[in-house]
Amino acid sequence: MNFQKILIANRGEIAVRIIRACKELGISTVAVYSEADRDALHVRLADEAYCIGPVLSKESYLNITNIMSVATLTECDAIHPGYGFLAENADFAEICESCNISFIGPSAEAITKMGDKAVAKQTMRDAGVPVIPGSDGLVEDLDQAVMIARDIGYPIIIKATAGGGGKGIRIAEDEESLVKQITAAQQEAQKAFGNAGVYLEKFLTGMKHVEIQIIADKHGNAVHLGERDCSIQRRRQKLIEEAPCPILSEETRQSMGDAAVRAALAVNYSGAGTLEFLLSPDGDFYFMEMNTRIQVEHPVTEMVTGVDLIKEMISVIEGNPLSFTQEDIVINGWSIECRINAEDPSRNFMPAPGKINFYLPPGGPGVRVDSAAYQGYNIPPYYDSMIAKLIVWAPTRDEAINKMRRALSEFAVEGIPTTIPFHMRLLEHPVFGKGDFDIKFLEENEI
Amino acid sequence: MNFQKILIANRGEIAVRIIRACKELGISTVAVYSEADRDALHVRLADEAYCIGPVLSKESYLNITNIMSVATLTECDAIHPGYGFLAENADFAEICESCNISFIGPSAEAITKMGDKAVAKQTMRDAGVPVIPGSDGLVEDLDQAVMIARDIGYPIIIKATAGGGGKGIRIAEDEESLVKQITAAQQEAQKAFGNAGVYLEKFLTGMKHVEIQIIADKHGNAVHLGERDCSIQRRRQKLIEEAPCPILSEETRQSMGDAAVRAALAVNYSGAGTLEFLLSPDGDFYFMEMNTRIQVEHPVTEMVTGVDLIKEMISVIEGNPLSFTQEDIVINGWSIECRINAEDPSRNFMPAPGKINFYLPPGGPGVRVDSAAYQGYNIPPYYDSMIAKLIVWAPTRDEAINKMRRALSEFAVEGIPTTIPFHMRLLEHPVFGKGDFDIKFLEENEI
Repeated sequence: MNFQKILIANRGEIAVRIIRACKELGISTVAVYSEADRDALHVRLADEAYCIGPVLSKESYLNITNIMSVATLTECDAIHPGYGFLAENADFAEICESCNISFIGPSAEAITKMGDKAVAKQTMRDAGVPVIPGSDGLVEDLDQAVMIARDIGYPIIIKATAGGGGKGIRIAEDEESLVKQITAAQQEAQKAFGNAGVYLEKFLTGMKHVEIQIIADKHGNAVHLGERDCSIQRRRQKLIEEAPCPILSEETRQSMGDAAVRAALAVNYSGAGTLEFLLSPDGDFYFMEMNTRIQVEHPVTEMVTGVDLIKEMISVIEGNPLSFTQEDIVINGWSIECRINAEDPSRNFMPAPGKINFYLPPGGPGVRVDSAAYQGYNIPPYYDSMIAKLIVWAPTRDEAINKMRRALSEFAVEGIPTTIPFHMRLLEHPVFGKGDFDIKFLEENEI
Repeated sequence: MNFQKILIANRGEIAVRIIRACKELGISTVAVYSEADRDALHVRLADEAYCIGPVLSKESYLNITNIMSVATLTECDAIHPGYGFLAENADFAEICESCNISFIGPSAEAITKMGDKAVAKQTMRDAGVPVIPGSDGLVEDLDQAVMIARDIGYPIIIKATAGGGGKGIRIAEDEESLVKQITAAQQEAQKAFGNAGVYLEKFLTGMKHVEIQIIADKHGNAVHLGERDCSIQRRRQKLIEEAPCPILSEETRQSMGDAAVRAALAVNYSGAGTLEFLLSPDGDFYFMEMNTRIQVEHPVTEMVTGVDLIKEMISVIEGNPLSFTQEDIVINGWSIECRINAEDPSRNFMPAPGKINFYLPPGGPGVRVDSAAYQGYNIPPYYDSMIAKLIVWAPTRDEAINKMRRALSEFAVEGIPTTIPFHMRLLEHPVFGKGDFDIKFLEENEI
């Protein structure tokens, strides 16, 4: 079927991104917004827009009842969840299907499987995807934990199976520390995620965060679109992403891509998804988790492949076969994305919402801006602090870095502090220039 | 040599475009500006900026003495003239060279040869490039004109050899009309261009304006970068350009490209240049003129080839060989450019300068904006009315049209009338969709 009208269950730049794709496809759009977002750009750009609740996310952007009411009343064929909010909520995916509204993402079953980190790891192991050495599933008791830890060697990470995005993680340097932390970790996980399950993993050092973009249709086809290097992170939040990864060999690229496709097929995946791996300096890689949704950093993949991932995910959920095969995917040139956040670098990157008094995004060749900001916009303090994604493309990595520096230097945002000066400094760092930074780079270096 | 500092002898979006390229190359920039342009974006973005005179172009942007003074005092290695103003002024190119400052363009000799339309035509004919049937050089007297006209057949165009850009042109439908107009045309040419020379050409109908981008280095290498279809014109001013041309056969593309390269080599060309042709529905093509500079519409070529023309022209004038060969140039996908002018469509597209009260350019994948506009900017009434170039790229022409419609629909410019609504209507026209419009399309159709 061809979707005639899509509801976008999100806000900010990703809602704008999805509205843009729909407009180009000739699909009508329905925006939803909280009371804090009456002046938001996604509300202005959509064909229709409805308020779904107060400022708190759980009363608006997470309010499934209200969102489903709008979708039903406006006769939407489908809902695109974007990222965050309801994007990886299996119940929501199921409710959509039961209301005969397509959820633009994988099945509830695939979301559930990948949402439980221990189950995901087991599924990947079964599919022949390398995983981080660790407990074979959840840790049952302290004795078992100690035995496993002796086997894989310290340091060890204790992870909550229901955690994610850097939450629910502890590190044990030795057996004493493990014994001390394991029960606390379980109790904490129960409290934070309603699930006490924890598992153990070897703590690896010098690792890069490298992820593979995949997309799959409902006819058994899955294709990977190369990798992204997302190792530049602060408190496990990605700040800069690039494609391709500057140190990946063609051989490792191939095997990571093949592993990602096997993983997607193993869970009957449909739509766009990402397999996150740790990559060692020797080229060994280990599955971390799968994100069953579009990601913030998807544009760098679009820039080097020429594929519009949002359009393609709509198409495959409509039931079409993928519009390309693995052989059609060629990685061309280099792309970098900087997340521009309304944060104060001088105050430990605290979110700093407020009114944008002057706003002029950069332009010219090879520059893409995905943003919901505009001059005069008052950034509400209730949601995330990202105000724009600045993405560049150039034939080579050096040229892409120079282009990003140029684009950052002309990006004018006045009235609020942003991470633009931070990115400028980071891009001048010789280690960034060489490309062999690991996920601890920002922790270990003063930028 | 590597240029360390370049003066940009221009204003508006092209000055911004050149500053961006220089920044990415690590070259310092010197902007010049008239008294009306103190708040212009190119002044803000350059490393240094100097006022060179009052609002009138001939006292500022055409003021060679003042521009050369700034270039000398700031120790610039080179001057980029952009388009318009001094870009095709052979004297200026010569003065630059005599001051030991590189002119980023071809030699004064090549400019002179191509600036005189009759000489250019003869040069092209000698190089084996097809030209429009007409007088073999300038018309000497009325009798000769009548003889030539009988030979090539009516209707006939009378063109001033020193004219260009649609100026200095008359059409004679029959012999009576020719006799009536020829002397008047000569007198008018003498008055307007200081050169009474006129020549005759067959008036062709159903023609497209198709031009070939070339670039040449100082080592005898010239490469063409495919064609642009610029047939959407009003009063001979281009409004929409695209690459490739929707109706060009691969065979004709090849022979036009070959002809363009032969032409460039024939005049020892260096830098970027464009050969403008008329293309008949049968695939015959005829040389019209060569523009010995970068053109407004160069971005569509950049989008489908991946080549940065401004960077490449700087590189070849530095003395480097071209960074690519003909075989490296592959046309990928489709690109369209709409010129967004501050004009009032309801008042016959009169320029309508004024203050921009709200400005938000479109973003997202495949969208490029080359502009010097910003929110709060007061467009001065003294220069041209173009405020932005909106350029899109997509894999196919249909997708590019849909993307342009989406981008136009979200392009917010408030406070002044613009051509955005006009472009929206034009892009919905079925003939535009088919791509077989000719240069009379806008004249003959109500948009």
